[in-house]
Amino acid sequence: MSDNFPDLAATLASIARGFHARGWLLGTSGNLSAVVQREPLRLAMSPSGVDKGELMPEQMLTIDEHARIVDGNSGKPSDESLLHLRVVKERGAGAVLHTHSVWNTILSDLYASDGGVRIEGFEMLKGLQGVQTHEHSEWLPIVDNSQDMPALAESIAQTLNEHQSAHGFLLRRHGLYAWGETLAQAKRHVEILEFLLETMGRTLHIRNAV
Amino acid sequence: MSDNFPDLAATLASIARGFHARGWLLGTSGNLSAVVQREPLRLAMSPSGVDKGELMPEQMLTIDEHARIVDGNSGKPSDESLLHLRVVKERGAGAVLHTHSVWNTILSDLYASDGGVRIEGFEMLKGLQGVQTHEHSEWLPIVDNSQDMPALAESIAQTLNEHQSAHGFLLRRHGLYAWGETLAQAKRHVEILEFLLETMGRTLHIRNAV
Amino acid sequence: MSDNFPDLAATLASIARGFHARGWLLGTSGNLSAVVQREPLRLAMSPSGVDKGELMPEQMLTIDEHARIVDGNSGKPSDESLLHLRVVKERGAGAVLHTHSVWNTILSDLYASDGGVRIEGFEMLKGLQGVQTHEHSEWLPIVDNSQDMPALAESIAQTLNEHQSAHGFLLRRHGLYAWGETLAQAKRHVEILEFLLETMGRTLHIRNAV
Amino acid sequence: MSDNFPDLAATLASIARGFHARGWLLGTSGNLSAVVQREPLRLAMSPSGVDKGELMPEQMLTIDEHARIVDGNSGKPSDESLLHLRVVKERGAGAVLHTHSVWNTILSDLYASDGGVRIEGFEMLKGLQGVQTHEHSEWLPIVDNSQDMPALAESIAQTLNEHQSAHGFLLRRHGLYAWGETLAQAKRHVEILEFLLETMGRTLHIRNAV
Repeated sequence: MSDNFPDLAATLASIARGFHARGWLLGTSGNLSAVVQREPLRLAMSPSGVDKGELMPEQMLTIDEHARIVDGNSGKPSDESLLHLRVVKERGAGAVLHTHSVWNTILSDLYASDGGVRIEGFEMLKGLQGVQTHEHSEWLPIVDNSQDMPALAESIAQTLNEHQSAHGFLLRRHGLYAWGETLAQAKRHVEILEFLLETMGRTLHIRNAV
Repeated sequence: MSDNFPDLAATLASIARGFHARGWLLGTSGNLSAVVQREPLRLAMSPSGVDKGELMPEQMLTIDEHARIVDGNSGKPSDESLLHLRVVKERGAGAVLHTHSVWNTILSDLYASDGGVRIEGFEMLKGLQGVQTHEHSEWLPIVDNSQDMPALAESIAQTLNEHQSAHGFLLRRHGLYAWGETLAQAKRHVEILEFLLETMGRTLHIRNAV
Repeated sequence: MSDNFPDLAATLASIARGFHARGWLLGTSGNLSAVVQREPLRLAMSPSGVDKGELMPEQMLTIDEHARIVDGNSGKPSDESLLHLRVVKERGAGAVLHTHSVWNTILSDLYASDGGVRIEGFEMLKGLQGVQTHEHSEWLPIVDNSQDMPALAESIAQTLNEHQSAHGFLLRRHGLYAWGETLAQAKRHVEILEFLLETMGRTLHIRNAV
Repeated sequence: MSDNFPDLAATLASIARGFHARGWLLGTSGNLSAVVQREPLRLAMSPSGVDKGELMPEQMLTIDEHARIVDGNSGKPSDESLLHLRVVKERGAGAVLHTHSVWNTILSDLYASDGGVRIEGFEMLKGLQGVQTHEHSEWLPIVDNSQDMPALAESIAQTLNEHQSAHGFLLRRHGLYAWGETLAQAKRHVEILEFLLETMGRTLHIRNAV
């Protein structure tokens, strides 16, 4: 196995603690992963049911393409490991981060009937990989939530195929998935999308008030 | 006496400081407890009138089933110790946490005439012990506030009996009580319920705005 | 001179850094003081124009009853030292804390024409010295802002005399003053009043929305 | 070269990490600079595309008046270096800070058709250099966003000339620029303007609600 696991595990744990401090991973919610190697596929993955504010590198699991643990770790991988694996497969992502924030939860419900949230005209969009101007229009698709993980993975794959340029997606009343070629890029994408969702949510209040 | 007191006291103090940082225990409000042993009952309990942002393990008290201090500590147990003891008795809880947040205060008043807050359809609900799906419907009862602690303990016991599956309750214009089999579970439940109350409160703004 | 200055200075600096982290002392705003001795009066006072997020104990000044520096420190006392001295005189306070928060600024303006904010029915009120029940009704007077410090000190003295039981007051579009017999009590009062002002401000949004 | 670079670099990195914690520099957004020397002009400048929450002093670049790197550092200066240089030239500033906050983004759009935001009557304004009273009226101009940096630098220069007493400006749906004679002053100005924009944004909600 590749020996970049320790670095990835340390960075994943650090990101988890930082996001928990911002209130994006409360109550053991959310999960984080990074590709350790591609052939055969190995993912460093946060364990299920763990307080993300106290996540330590040695708790990170290694899973294979079927979400089975392949190291000796006694932790349990998240049920949502299948979703991470699917994003890695569909997008060639090197890291996948999933957050539960107040604002992503609210907007995932508010715009559910539209099938997604259109975000456009913000300078902040330029931080998304490949975006060159604030005039970019980003479509953040919303997928209905489900407890049937294989079925949900299929819905997500279909959504990703329909929206090839999307940098993330929302699960309705559930949370945000974003990814990147590297962990740093995935973290950047989460921060940008969370910022923009909060900005749009608060703007809705004010637009109506003035 | 059981020798798990030092670990429980250290964890309670750490949770207190973290919740204070989030603004959930301002002004010496709120209190925290964990069961040290069941027979006879001994509770590790935060002292009254102490800044939770600076709470140290050595300040934690040990109380018995009548809320009397049973160690040599000079601190004073909170008047609300009776409520903690009642939750432990009614639910078999291993830990009880009580927070005063802005959002739990607001929603405890806003929905008082309904007798509780219905929370349903959020993935975050799955973090509550025994809940398997976001389709779960959680009823968070609201109990009128009172300064008569024995009477309030009775009201709470009655409410808990009426709502056997509730994972917490609100005291009107006062705060949230949540509990768990372990301290980690109780902390998880607080984070989840605080997150959902904030999400619902902010959604009320937006639903009206759009 | 009394030798409790080092302890008071260290605690004042620690409170300053904590309040700055919460956004209550941004941009070098606000100031903090504690009584070192009564006869003759000596106040430990934060210097003017200093970043409260980096305030160190050795920067704290000692001033006399006329707000003149009486130690060799090269710092400049805040213009508002006269207001601190007046609160100490009128209330016999042992410590005075002045914060600029978003919510105290908003409510100090919104309720200016009423001359104050009525806060009642919250459990959190019990943390104010001498308050025994959530049924307490606290009147937080609002004083018009001014750059004439002697005149403003007189207005404040008059307001404090008219409202003998007030635990703090607002300066319009300026900030909150609160105090206590000790620094710990003053800090507790600030946290409680800030919490309640935020709660009332956010409730105004929601009451209107539902 | 002047030997104040290490101190400036350390302070810039510290400010960056603090602002990132407040959510004002998420997703590698924003940038920070300070004048190292005037003749010839040398600016310590944050590199492009770096996580501001982890910015280290040794990552800071030195650029000349044409935004070219003049030390051996392998980093890339931000495209917005030209804007920093222009502010330094037009205002004689010693430091320039650029933040992306939720509230500055919202108000930069909401008031775009007015060409700026008028901020008046707040005590907090006194923290802006040269302002003596809360009765001050500050005009914070809004400049349309653009990806053509030389053209945008010209627009900014024209705006600064039209509004000689402005302490900052907004780029529409982009962010805030503020500056100062020193880094400490520039930081103070950012904190004050961010505070006031948040206060005004939240007031819009409430004014409408009551």
